[in-house]
Amino acid sequence: MDKSLRISLAHGSGGIEMHEIIEKLIVSKVPMNLRNTLNGVGLDALDDGASIPLPNGKHIVISIDAYTVNPPFFPGGNIGILAACGSINDVLMMGGRPLAMLDSIVVEEGFPIEDLDIIINSFIDVLKNEKVALIGGDFKVMPKGHVDKIVITTTAIGIADKVIVDYPQPGDKIIVSDYVGDHGAVVMLLQMGLEEKVEEFSKGLLKSDVKTLTKLIVPLIERYGVYIHGARDPTRGGLAGVLNEWSSSTGTIIIVDEESIPIRSSVKRYSEMLGIDPLYLASEGVAVLSVDNSVAEEVVKFIRSLGFENTRIIGEVRQSEKYKGIVLGRTSVGGYRIIDPPRGELVPRIC
Amino acid sequence: MDKSLRISLAHGSGGIEMHEIIEKLIVSKVPMNLRNTLNGVGLDALDDGASIPLPNGKHIVISIDAYTVNPPFFPGGNIGILAACGSINDVLMMGGRPLAMLDSIVVEEGFPIEDLDIIINSFIDVLKNEKVALIGGDFKVMPKGHVDKIVITTTAIGIADKVIVDYPQPGDKIIVSDYVGDHGAVVMLLQMGLEEKVEEFSKGLLKSDVKTLTKLIVPLIERYGVYIHGARDPTRGGLAGVLNEWSSSTGTIIIVDEESIPIRSSVKRYSEMLGIDPLYLASEGVAVLSVDNSVAEEVVKFIRSLGFENTRIIGEVRQSEKYKGIVLGRTSVGGYRIIDPPRGELVPRIC
Repeated sequence: MDKSLRISLAHGSGGIEMHEIIEKLIVSKVPMNLRNTLNGVGLDALDDGASIPLPNGKHIVISIDAYTVNPPFFPGGNIGILAACGSINDVLMMGGRPLAMLDSIVVEEGFPIEDLDIIINSFIDVLKNEKVALIGGDFKVMPKGHVDKIVITTTAIGIADKVIVDYPQPGDKIIVSDYVGDHGAVVMLLQMGLEEKVEEFSKGLLKSDVKTLTKLIVPLIERYGVYIHGARDPTRGGLAGVLNEWSSSTGTIIIVDEESIPIRSSVKRYSEMLGIDPLYLASEGVAVLSVDNSVAEEVVKFIRSLGFENTRIIGEVRQSEKYKGIVLGRTSVGGYRIIDPPRGELVPRIC
Repeated sequence: MDKSLRISLAHGSGGIEMHEIIEKLIVSKVPMNLRNTLNGVGLDALDDGASIPLPNGKHIVISIDAYTVNPPFFPGGNIGILAACGSINDVLMMGGRPLAMLDSIVVEEGFPIEDLDIIINSFIDVLKNEKVALIGGDFKVMPKGHVDKIVITTTAIGIADKVIVDYPQPGDKIIVSDYVGDHGAVVMLLQMGLEEKVEEFSKGLLKSDVKTLTKLIVPLIERYGVYIHGARDPTRGGLAGVLNEWSSSTGTIIIVDEESIPIRSSVKRYSEMLGIDPLYLASEGVAVLSVDNSVAEEVVKFIRSLGFENTRIIGEVRQSEKYKGIVLGRTSVGGYRIIDPPRGELVPRIC
C-alpha cells in the first residue's frame, strides 16, 4: 500500500469515499461466513445496524454509532441528546423496539464537569422518556489535546418481530416525515462562527431537529409493517445520501419532486449563501420511508395523525432498463437534474 | 455544581475517582427500573458488561469498551488487536460465548491509511480466529488535532447458559492465569520514551500480554461453572483494582500472598525503577478467578492443562467481623500491608 496515503475528512463524510474505504479496508477482509450471525442482517447491508435471529422467531436489533459533534452544545440539543436519539432511531429504522443502551464516553482532561453533567442528564432524560434501560458503559479520559472535548459512542439494542431490510421496490412512494437538513445547517453555521449573525438562532426558529422517532415508527410498523420497504434517518450525507444508497443497492431510479421536499426557508437561505445543497445536510429526527404505492397516501395521513404534520410524499421509485442506480430531482422549472451521491466533506463532526 | 470543577486524568483511571464520578454523574440519575433489562445484569453491577435474559432461558451478554491506547502500535500488539480481544474477554468473563461484534472507529485526519489497514487487519484476524462475526460498525474522521490518532470502540455480544455474576464467597481461592502487568508496563515505558533503553523490547522478552481467553474460559465454565464465583480480566486498575472491587462489593477481606503473584522480573524491575506497584498495572490477557475452595487445586491443574502453565492460587477470600472490604498482601518478610484501591492516574491511555 502507498505509504503516503492518508485519511481525509471525506473518508468520514458518509459519502462515496467513506463507502469505498470501508469496503476496501474492512468489509472485503471479513469472510462471508463472518459477516452476519445466524443469517441476520450484517456487515453486507452497510445499514445503520445489525440483527441476530432469536429462537422464538423474533430478532435482536443492534446498532453502534460514535457521536463527535462539534460544538457539543447547539440550539435544540447537545451531544448527549444526539447520542441517545441517534442510536434509538437506528434501532427503530430496522423495525426494532429499543430496550437497552450501553454508552462509552471519552472526554478530554479539563472538560468542565458541569457541562458533562448537563450532557449526561440530557442523555438519561431521553432514555427515561423512551423507557430504554442503560445497562452498561465505559468511561475514559484522554489527556488535554488528545481529544477535542468529548466523543460518545452508544450501542442500542431492541427487539423486532420482523426486521426491516431496506429494499425499495419499483412503484414505491418516497415519504419524508419532516423538514430536512435542520441539524446539519445549525452545526455548519456554528462551526463557521456565524451564530451571532443568524437571527433565527436568537428567535429559536432555527435549531437542530434531533429527536427520537419512536412515536412514528412503532405505530407505523404495527399498522403498515409489510408495506414499508425502506426506513432510514438521513443523518450524514442527508436525504441525497439515503436515496442514492437505495437506488444504487436496488438498481432502480428514484425521482423526487424538489419543490415538494420540506426544507425550511431559513435552511434554504443559509444553504444558498454558503453554496451548499440542503439535500446533503444531516437531519437527526426525520424518517425517510419507501412505502408501497397502494397505501402511500393513507400512510401519510396516518403519520400526520401521529403529530408529524409536515409528512409528505416527495417522489417515487421506478424501474428503467436504461438507467440504474441514480436519483433524479424534478426542478421547479420542470426539468430534471441528477442528485449525485455525497462526495467530499461537507462539514466535519456534524454528528 | 461548582463551575470550576474539571475532568482530570484520574477520573478515567479505573480507580476510586472514576467510580465516584460514574456513580454521581450517571448511575444515580438512572431510575432503578431502567438500570437493567428484564432483570438481567445491568448498570448496578458496574461490571465489564451487561446481560439480557432470553425466552429460552439463555442470556445475551453484551459489553462496550473504548480503546484509546497510546501509542497505537506496541510490542505484542496494536489497538486493533486490543479492541477485539478486550471486548471478547469482557463477554467471556460474564460466562458468555462471543458470537458477534460491532466496531466504531474514530480516526484523525491525516492518519496513514497503511497503518489503519494494519490495525483493521489485526482486528479482523482476531475475529477470524475466534469465529466472531463482524455484523456492523461506524466510521468517523475528526479533523487534524481534534483526536490523537485513533480511538476504537467495540461492542461484543455473546450467549451465556448462565451469567457469571461476580460474588466471591468466603473460603474461595483467588487464582490468576498468568503473569500480571505486562501490558501496562509496556505501554508505560513507551509513553515515557524509554523504548530504546529497554533491552527486553529488542529481545522480544517484554511485550503486551494482549490475547483472548476463550480457550481458558469456555472449557472452564463447561467443567466447573458452578464453582466460579468471580471472573475478571484485570485491565485498568490492575489486579489491585479487581480484588478491591470484589472485597468491597462483598464486604469480605481478600488476602493474597505477594510472593506467589506471577510478575515477570523485568516488569518488577521497571516498576521499581519508576516507583510503581505492578499490582496496579493493566493486563490484557489474564483471568482473575474466585473459585470455590473445594475444587481450587483441581481448577489450577485444569487451566494449566489448557496451556496456561503460569496459573496459580495467589490468595483467598475471608470473612471478618472486624474488617470488611479490604485487600491485604502478605509480604515476603511475613507481615501484611493493605493493598489500596487504585487512586490517581497511573498512566493515561493504557487501553
